[in-house]
Amino acid sequence: MRGGYGLMGRITKLKTSIYFKDWAAIGGYEERRGPLGEKFDFCDMTDKFGQSTWEIAEAEMGRIALNTALTKSNLSHSELELLVAGDLQNQCVASSTGLSSFGIPFLGVYGACSTCTESLMTLASFLDSSENMTYGAALTTSHNSAAERQFRTPIEYGGQRAPTAQWTSTAAGAFILGRGDGDVKITEYMPGRIVDGSTSDGANMGGAMAFAAFDTIKTYFEESGEDIRNIDQIVTGDLGRVGSDILRELLRKELPGGERLHDDCGLLLYDFKTQDVHSGASGCGTSASVLACHFLPLLKEKKLGRILFLSTGALMSPSSLLQGENIYGIAPLIRLESVRGE
Amino acid sequence: MRGGYGLMGRITKLKTSIYFKDWAAIGGYEERRGPLGEKFDFCDMTDKFGQSTWEIAEAEMGRIALNTALTKSNLSHSELELLVAGDLQNQCVASSTGLSSFGIPFLGVYGACSTCTESLMTLASFLDSSENMTYGAALTTSHNSAAERQFRTPIEYGGQRAPTAQWTSTAAGAFILGRGDGDVKITEYMPGRIVDGSTSDGANMGGAMAFAAFDTIKTYFEESGEDIRNIDQIVTGDLGRVGSDILRELLRKELPGGERLHDDCGLLLYDFKTQDVHSGASGCGTSASVLACHFLPLLKEKKLGRILFLSTGALMSPSSLLQGENIYGIAPLIRLESVRGE
Repeated sequence: MRGGYGLMGRITKLKTSIYFKDWAAIGGYEERRGPLGEKFDFCDMTDKFGQSTWEIAEAEMGRIALNTALTKSNLSHSELELLVAGDLQNQCVASSTGLSSFGIPFLGVYGACSTCTESLMTLASFLDSSENMTYGAALTTSHNSAAERQFRTPIEYGGQRAPTAQWTSTAAGAFILGRGDGDVKITEYMPGRIVDGSTSDGANMGGAMAFAAFDTIKTYFEESGEDIRNIDQIVTGDLGRVGSDILRELLRKELPGGERLHDDCGLLLYDFKTQDVHSGASGCGTSASVLACHFLPLLKEKKLGRILFLSTGALMSPSSLLQGENIYGIAPLIRLESVRGE
Repeated sequence: MRGGYGLMGRITKLKTSIYFKDWAAIGGYEERRGPLGEKFDFCDMTDKFGQSTWEIAEAEMGRIALNTALTKSNLSHSELELLVAGDLQNQCVASSTGLSSFGIPFLGVYGACSTCTESLMTLASFLDSSENMTYGAALTTSHNSAAERQFRTPIEYGGQRAPTAQWTSTAAGAFILGRGDGDVKITEYMPGRIVDGSTSDGANMGGAMAFAAFDTIKTYFEESGEDIRNIDQIVTGDLGRVGSDILRELLRKELPGGERLHDDCGLLLYDFKTQDVHSGASGCGTSASVLACHFLPLLKEKKLGRILFLSTGALMSPSSLLQGENIYGIAPLIRLESVRGE
């Protein structure tokens, strides 16, 4: 595994507790059909969200997600001081187009499918740093049809997909963070390092990202000295079947017990028996929507106490693959805790 | 001007002073020929940086820029706790490829040509928030030939450019920030809002971004109550001739005196008489390299005391323009101050 000189990541404990005020998960047709379908706030069964192109459909899905989270949190957009967002479209135009009408100060991030964790970490840092900011939002979207057209072949072409390939989700997750109180909080974050995935196979991104996830998890426990028994779950973004198998094997060897705590949003979103998703879900909307509709509710209901959440990103472009470059992985981490009641 | 509901931006005064430890500007052939050419740390007259593709040349330029800044600051890469970087290539692969070998925790940002200010602001926020972080770096790159191929037509095509078009610079700026002391510091930041540029003309991005720059400048003075006479210069990123004319006209009407303080990196990088750059320089490397080779030295030498620095970004993609979407502008702001001696 190249990509480092044995450096350590840096874990930051937030000085101010940053709470999830509320959140929303929005999806499309396949997401509604999946095992988490009923937990989504809204799914558009046409995947079009009333728009004439897939690209603008994704922008509109993001707008709906943020609006839904605002409504659930009883906040107005004018109370948000910062919006951190990203997506997979070239130049991240789904975010800028979809969010332009809100007029909220904006920060665009690009971390491929690690965007959800990256944006939450960045927003938490800004809220922690700036006494002038009380509330902010993080938003992540991906759209299957926009991604297929941009990264692979037009869907009309009907190309055969490899068994290791994953299905880009049509999904959005929006999160309102702030100071004060709440049922779930971010207590720590750790940015990920760029780790060479040792492959240039664009149809096996889960496998390429598994090494970055392992690097982050191993570094977290080494740096923090945390006892693995204090953690209820280690959740990765979208490693899918191939990547999850690799990660669990690495954990079994080098962080025993870690493999039993592992779950992956890419394994949770679809039903492998009835949905033709090959190695599972991918796309940055995957970890964003599964966090919003599955893990945050479990933390809120105190069915989970402390989890490590690592969206996983494959840093590459269609051009870089054609030019023979390897895929680089990255896996930023946030620690989420359920707030104990009396 | 659409794109807001009369919201205000939020100015954050940093709790900890964040200093520029050192910096580097790297360029190509046209950059060396321009009026700032001798101030660059290094220029590759082939634009190739020893690589076989323009895309990897950009990645290598970024790697050289960061290495140069590290050398000048007498720091090792292993002393950096965070790297915030971005570029214009699809999926920002210039940054991830070029920086993969360092093994430094990484955060990718996308703000089109506003990336330099966005990355400095984000890094400053992380350093301010995390007592665990002492040093970090921000890096921004753009490459003319990679950008032409990706955003417009292949350069071999020899297409005629419009008079309002700008010349994407082959340039990188790397900045090492940290706590402690230094000659120049960041004292405040203010994220920008997404502002509709009211045009879908991809050959006039300076004109589209001018409204975002004006929105940020006006909001800064309204929110801070700062007397404009306390500011030595208001520097925008790459508005070029058309955008700078629009901005100065807006300032003249609504913030009198502001127009005389304005300068634009896109006007400084090339010689309009001898270089065929039409409306001036663009590309996110423009404001990054001009900050590094021109404005930071002026601040260090106390020839400037306090400046507002706003890289300006045009949020669009070739697809979004073909689909008839407008160009959205964004202009995050940082306030830079020369540190007074005894």
